[in-house]
This record gives sequence, structure tokens and C-alpha cells, in this order.
Amino acid sequence: MNYFDQKNDTICALSTASGMGAIAVIRISGAAAFEITNRIFTKNIAEVPSHSAHFGRIKNAAGEIIDEVLLTVLKEGRSFTGENTVEIACHGSTYIQQQILQLLLTSGCRMAQPGEFTMRAFLNGKMDLSQAEAVADLISSESKKAHEIAMNQMRGGFSSELNDLREKLIHFASLVELELDFAEEDVEFADRTELKALVSEVLAYIQRLMKSFELGNAIKNGVPVAIVGAPNTGKSTLLNQLLGEERAIVSNIAGTTRDVIEETLNIEGIIFRLIDTAGIREGAEAIEAIGIEKSKQKIDQAQLVVLMSDYSENESHHEGHSTMSTDETVVWAKQLQQIYPTKKFIVLANKMDMRPSANTLEEDDNLKILAISAKKGLGIEEFKKWLVDQIQAGFDVSQETIVTNVRHVEALEKAAFSLQQAKDGLVTQVTGDFIAMDIRQAMFHLGSITGSISTDDLLGNIFAKFCIGK
Amino acid sequence: MNYFDQKNDTICALSTASGMGAIAVIRISGAAAFEITNRIFTKNIAEVPSHSAHFGRIKNAAGEIIDEVLLTVLKEGRSFTGENTVEIACHGSTYIQQQILQLLLTSGCRMAQPGEFTMRAFLNGKMDLSQAEAVADLISSESKKAHEIAMNQMRGGFSSELNDLREKLIHFASLVELELDFAEEDVEFADRTELKALVSEVLAYIQRLMKSFELGNAIKNGVPVAIVGAPNTGKSTLLNQLLGEERAIVSNIAGTTRDVIEETLNIEGIIFRLIDTAGIREGAEAIEAIGIEKSKQKIDQAQLVVLMSDYSENESHHEGHSTMSTDETVVWAKQLQQIYPTKKFIVLANKMDMRPSANTLEEDDNLKILAISAKKGLGIEEFKKWLVDQIQAGFDVSQETIVTNVRHVEALEKAAFSLQQAKDGLVTQVTGDFIAMDIRQAMFHLGSITGSISTDDLLGNIFAKFCIGK
Repeated sequence: MNYFDQKNDTICALSTASGMGAIAVIRISGAAAFEITNRIFTKNIAEVPSHSAHFGRIKNAAGEIIDEVLLTVLKEGRSFTGENTVEIACHGSTYIQQQILQLLLTSGCRMAQPGEFTMRAFLNGKMDLSQAEAVADLISSESKKAHEIAMNQMRGGFSSELNDLREKLIHFASLVELELDFAEEDVEFADRTELKALVSEVLAYIQRLMKSFELGNAIKNGVPVAIVGAPNTGKSTLLNQLLGEERAIVSNIAGTTRDVIEETLNIEGIIFRLIDTAGIREGAEAIEAIGIEKSKQKIDQAQLVVLMSDYSENESHHEGHSTMSTDETVVWAKQLQQIYPTKKFIVLANKMDMRPSANTLEEDDNLKILAISAKKGLGIEEFKKWLVDQIQAGFDVSQETIVTNVRHVEALEKAAFSLQQAKDGLVTQVTGDFIAMDIRQAMFHLGSITGSISTDDLLGNIFAKFCIGK
Repeated sequence: MNYFDQKNDTICALSTASGMGAIAVIRISGAAAFEITNRIFTKNIAEVPSHSAHFGRIKNAAGEIIDEVLLTVLKEGRSFTGENTVEIACHGSTYIQQQILQLLLTSGCRMAQPGEFTMRAFLNGKMDLSQAEAVADLISSESKKAHEIAMNQMRGGFSSELNDLREKLIHFASLVELELDFAEEDVEFADRTELKALVSEVLAYIQRLMKSFELGNAIKNGVPVAIVGAPNTGKSTLLNQLLGEERAIVSNIAGTTRDVIEETLNIEGIIFRLIDTAGIREGAEAIEAIGIEKSKQKIDQAQLVVLMSDYSENESHHEGHSTMSTDETVVWAKQLQQIYPTKKFIVLANKMDMRPSANTLEEDDNLKILAISAKKGLGIEEFKKWLVDQIQAGFDVSQETIVTNVRHVEALEKAAFSLQQAKDGLVTQVTGDFIAMDIRQAMFHLGSITGSISTDDLLGNIFAKFCIGK
């Protein structure tokens, strides 16, 4: 696929979700958008003003009516892509959608590639690259936090921070380069102490952005959580307790729910994805062996691990059935912490309501142990708070820029590497031309994020991941 | 649900297909549509002209930006519903869709019931009832013919025929009733012979419409077809031959195909639904017993029955494996015709390419027998023509009105019954007041189709079947 040979084509695509709906929207963009539309529409839209809507009929070459539609005209410079654009709101049958697209193809349009509308918006200077990428993130955002970050990025929040950084570096580089012009005179225009402070400041800032990706990625893709434990510790009760309220919210608005409801939890706007809960839901745990192997597989995929344990003092229960006490589970957790040092663990001491004595759990600095009753809903709020804290600690999502894009992190890493080199160079007193080169390199990488520096290959890669119609 | 207590509410719904897309459209309709929109939109749309589009931001009460949207304003009398209407084209994430709907609900809208937009169009005189029903048919139309019929009906084709009929009956009734006014004088204003001819004409026309429902229903819902036969007769080869081309067409336009491709054939715009082909596709026929019981179940559901037979002269094949010759299959077919007199049968004499002698099949007036080679594609076109002929024979879909709606057929049946009574009354010389009553009754039933006569219950039933957002 090469977008660039054909950037003057007029393109079309279904822009609404596929399938049957009351209405569907087909978008056309390009220089010939109005001319092509006039070939199939019963009204002449050549001279109508921008941002006007027109009711009329779509007809094929044989004069057969395909549909009655509401068509919106957006003129060059005032549309999303920056090009002449027509949006056709037709009846939402898949047959009609296909017929109109077919008709557009035979009338001079070409099917848009994934992301091609947004790429044109970028190429026409309507937005920079990180803003364009945010459009895709916005469309796929499933939670308040993911939406907030994407919206901030789309509206240029991240771009303006990057531009601030670049300006600081430009200032820096120009001082160093000025020095070079007078190299023979051995003059130091730039105060090296001040330069060091400036590079350190920019570097620290970039490192904070890099670190934010951990949170950003969790918010964008959801946090994988494993709930494991011996049978009869109450995993399915916990799951029902957690999902109970959630389900009600999801089905609140008719027409917007999805066919398959994943086992996910949305807590304070962060999506937690519960790994392989199918068995738990079906109550299979009762007949399941402790299944160490299966637990390991789940823990491998998880970022947060919840270990369920039986904290009741029901001794007959302990003996008669296979369950696992909290003390035993804490031992297990500590073994797991050795094996998985980067994952975060919590032991839930379940069935606290069935424990007559009010003795408290021992505090443990290295492992969170929390008494709950999944059945009675005790301790659940504190458990949720623990989940959120593991992800959000140290960041204020609504205030600070959070990086969510792998490409951006990679560019930031490269920029940080070059800045570190420049900083080292200042310490070891290398000549200004090397330092200037490092700084220019850092600026190049920062520029690749917003697309002020870009290549066709890069753009192709980015936009190919979009859905068609955007 | 009662639509009628709340017909002054302002309603909203997602109007595009549910799920994620590049964009989604939320529709708002009602007297307060502009006022409510102004509460959440960054531009004031109170005074803008109808059919104008506006780019701006949706904000919640806390001032957080939910999305950047393109919003189209359609004023009372010029919109689909006839009411003030706003269409919000937002980014197509389910999160954003839900947020905007939530915001509209808290700002004074109520969620639309299924079909409520179209019902308002009817109540506001934008279309009659049969046209409104055609909107739902249009949205669910999957084939050219179904689309053609729905489009004709939506554009008032059926309604105008019904109005012609009603006018003829009004003329008739007024003549009969005039006679009643002069009953004591024993005058006959209406020429009874002429009246009889008129009633017969209208009755014949209604009966043709009733009969068209057989075709209309097949076009709207697809024609169920059973392919049955002994193992090794080539059922799966036939299926692959039939579906081969089809599949390619379906996947032609990216973004419009559906996740699950049914085993359906679209021949000349009519959808043929192949019953339970799962076993055939997987080649299970080889290990399957003849399965008389299973065949019967399939035939029960079918309108057309295709019996596969082995027409090759490969005797060893006949003996070694369980297959069934064409002669044997014809005997079977004739038994089935006795059991299922309303279904249509064809015997396919498959593997004609493996028959060295060129002897022809015996003609049979009561049973179609067709030599084919599923493997080599011989006779397939003639087979398809047979399928289409069974459905289309006697009707010109592009010219004549085809009834597709059960409610309409029922109303037509009632009207026909009353007209038959009137006709009988003319023969047996009953008094004019009885005849006039029958004619009025017939007119009532015809009127119920277009909704010139309607009740709240009737409307509730009709529109509840619509999808939300239309």
C-alpha cells in the first residue's frame, strides 16, 4: 500500500460502525468530491455553501433510486481532512451501504485505506502527527481516563509540551553553535554550568514522560489482573461482588452495549481486565484441582495478582474440602514474589465474617494482606482502592501529560539517550560540535513525535493501524 | 411502554450501528432539541438556519470536553420526524457515545423507544403508516429485490394504489347509500350489474396483492432451501460450486462485510437460505448414515427441496459405498411430493460427466429432473434459473406491487372477506344498507394499512419492532 502516490485521489468509505443501524454515514474526501457526488445525487451541490445539509436521492446509472439521504457538504479548508468533503447519511442497511459505495467507486472514487482521512488531515496541516494518533486512541477509548488522555493529546496538549522542549533545545544548540563560529578565538558564549542545568532539566522532564507510559499503557490497554487461589476460597463470590454493579451500568443505555461483555472492571476510569474468569464464573472451581500450573499461566499474563485465601475459622471446612488458609497463602505469595519480582501481589483474607475472634492480620511491609468478606461486601472498597493505587500512584492523570503510545516512548528514549550524551560531553569538556550534534539528534527524535520530521514509511505504519473510514 | 403520553418529550438515541466506528451519529428530536443541545454544546444554535452544520465541542457540567463534533440542525417541518432535530456526528468510541447520551439524558432528553423517530414522522404527517413500515424494511433489506420493494413502498407506491381502491369503493358506497335515502321509493340509483363488476374488479385486485405476499415474504425473509441426498451424491461439491462465486462478492468492499457469513445465495436479487449446511460443509456426509430423519427435518423447514442423486454409471461405486442413483431418487421424490404437496422439488442427476453413454433423462411433467455436474459446473445456471422461477413466476417485481408485510396481508384478507360478502349480497339481492356496511368495512381495513384509520395499540405494536434510533 502506498498512500503517497495517490494523495490526490478522491476517497470514500463507510465511517460508521459496520452492520445494520437506523442510519449509516459514508464519507467522501478529495478534490473531486462534489463533482463525483453530483453524478449520483439528485441535487446539484457544486455551488452550495460549506456546512450545509441537503435532502435528496441517490440514483444509479439506470436511474433506480438507491436511497433517500441527508448529505452534508464541507468545503476545502473547513473540513476534517482539509479537502472538499461530503458526508452521506443514508438508511443503515448493509445492502444500501454497499450499493452507494459501489456507485461511488464506479463514479470516480477509490476506497480509502485505513486511517487515510486522518492522514490527509495531517498532510494538509490540520493537525500534527501526535494529534492524528490521538484520533485513533479517542475512537478506541473505553474508559474515562483513556478518553481524557486521548482528548488532551488530540487537542494538542502533548504537542505544545514537546514544542516547549524543542525550543529550549534550539536555544541551547544555537548558543553552542555560535561558540563554534568563534572556535579559533576560544570564546565560551554559553555558560557551561547553565547549559548543564538546562540539559538536566529537559532530561528529567523526558524521563518523567517515559515513566508515565507505564500508567498510560495500563489506561489505554487495561490492566491485566489474575485472581487465583484454592477451590472454596470464594473466587466466584468475589467476582460476582465486583461485577455485580458494573453489569448494571453497562446495560444502562440501550443500543450502546456490546454483544460480548468482557469480564472487565472500570474503577475510577481505569479498566482492569480479569484474566480467564470463565472457569470462575461457571463455578468450576469446586471441582477443579488446585491447578498450580493453571494459576502460573494466569500470573504470567497479569500485572496485578490477587491471591484468595480462606480466613474463616471453620476447621471442619478446612479438613473436609480442599481450601487454603490465609497463613498458607501468605507463604505461597512470598514464593511467588521471588519468582515474579515486577508483579504486584495482594492476599485477600476472605470470609472474615465467619471468624468469631476479632484478631487482626499481621502487618507486612512487603505484602499487602487485606481481610474481606466477598459475600457480605466487606473490604471490597479498600480492595478496589489498592488496585487503583498500584496503577495511579505518583501521577495526576488530569493534570500531567501521560504517554500512551509505544512509538512516542521509543522516540523519547532516543532523545533521552542523545541528551545524556550531551550532558556527559559537557562534563568531560568535549568540543562544542559534538554537543551540538547530540542536541540536534535529540530534537530530531522529539520532532518525529509531532511529525515535524517524518518519512513516508513512518506515516504508512502509523495510519495503517487505524480503522477504515477515519 | 406508552408512546402517546409522552409525544411532546424530546427524545434521543444512537442512530448508527452499535459498536466502534470512525464516527457515530446521535439523533435528538422534539420541541426542546435546540435548547437541550445548547446546554452541552459550545456554540449557540438557537438562531442558526435549518440544514446547517456546526463544528464545536460537547462539554459536561464540569466543563470537561467530551468530544469535538459536527452537529447538524434541522428545523421543525423540514426534518425526518417533522420536529426540531439535531444530529450529532461524534467520534465513534462506545465511551463517547455513552457519555453524550448520558449528558443528553441529564439535560432534559429521554431515550427514544424503538421506532419512535419514525412514529413521530407518521404522527406529524410526514408519511403514512405503510411508508413508515417500509423504513424498517429498507433498513433490514439485504437484497436488490427486497430493497426495491421497500423503496417503492416508502416512496408511497403501495399507498397510492390503496387510495385508488378506496376511492373506487367510496364511489360505490355513496351510490348505494344514496339509494338508501330513497328506500321508500324503491329506486335503484346504482346499476347493480355495474356495481357487481366494480366489486369483482377490486376484489380481484386485492386477491392479486394477497397472492403476491408469497413472493414478497420470500424476498423479504429469504427462501428456505433444503439440499438433501444420500452420501457421495455430491452435496458438498454442489454447495462449494454455488457459494464459490458468492463469497468473493461479499468480501469485495472492505468495512461492509459481516462477521458471520451465512450460507445464503443471492440469485438475481433473491436471497436463498440454505438450511443446515454445516454438516455438508465439513464433509460429514461421507460418514453420515442416509439420515432419513434428518432429511425430513430439513424438508419440513424448506420451501424448495433439492434432492441430490448419483447419475454416474460407476457401478462399483454404487455397490461399494452408500450412494443413491437418479432412478431411486426419483422414486423417493415422488413419495415426498405426496407427503409435502405445497413444497417444490427438484432432482439433480449429478456426475453427468462420469456417464459415458449420452442417454437423456426421462421427461416428467410433475417433477423437475436436471442433469448436472457439480464438480465441472455443468447445469448450474439452469439449476439457479429453476430456483428463481419457483419464486418469481407470474410476477414482475420491478413493475407490480408486492406485499411483504404480514399485517398488510391480514388487512387485505379482511377487506376481501367484506367485499366477497358485498358481492354475494348483490347476487342475493339483500338490501342496500347491508351492502353499504360491508363496503365500509372493506374500506376500514384498507385504511388501516396506510394508517388513515389507526389506534394507539396498533401503532405501539408496529413501531416496537423497529430498531432504536429510527
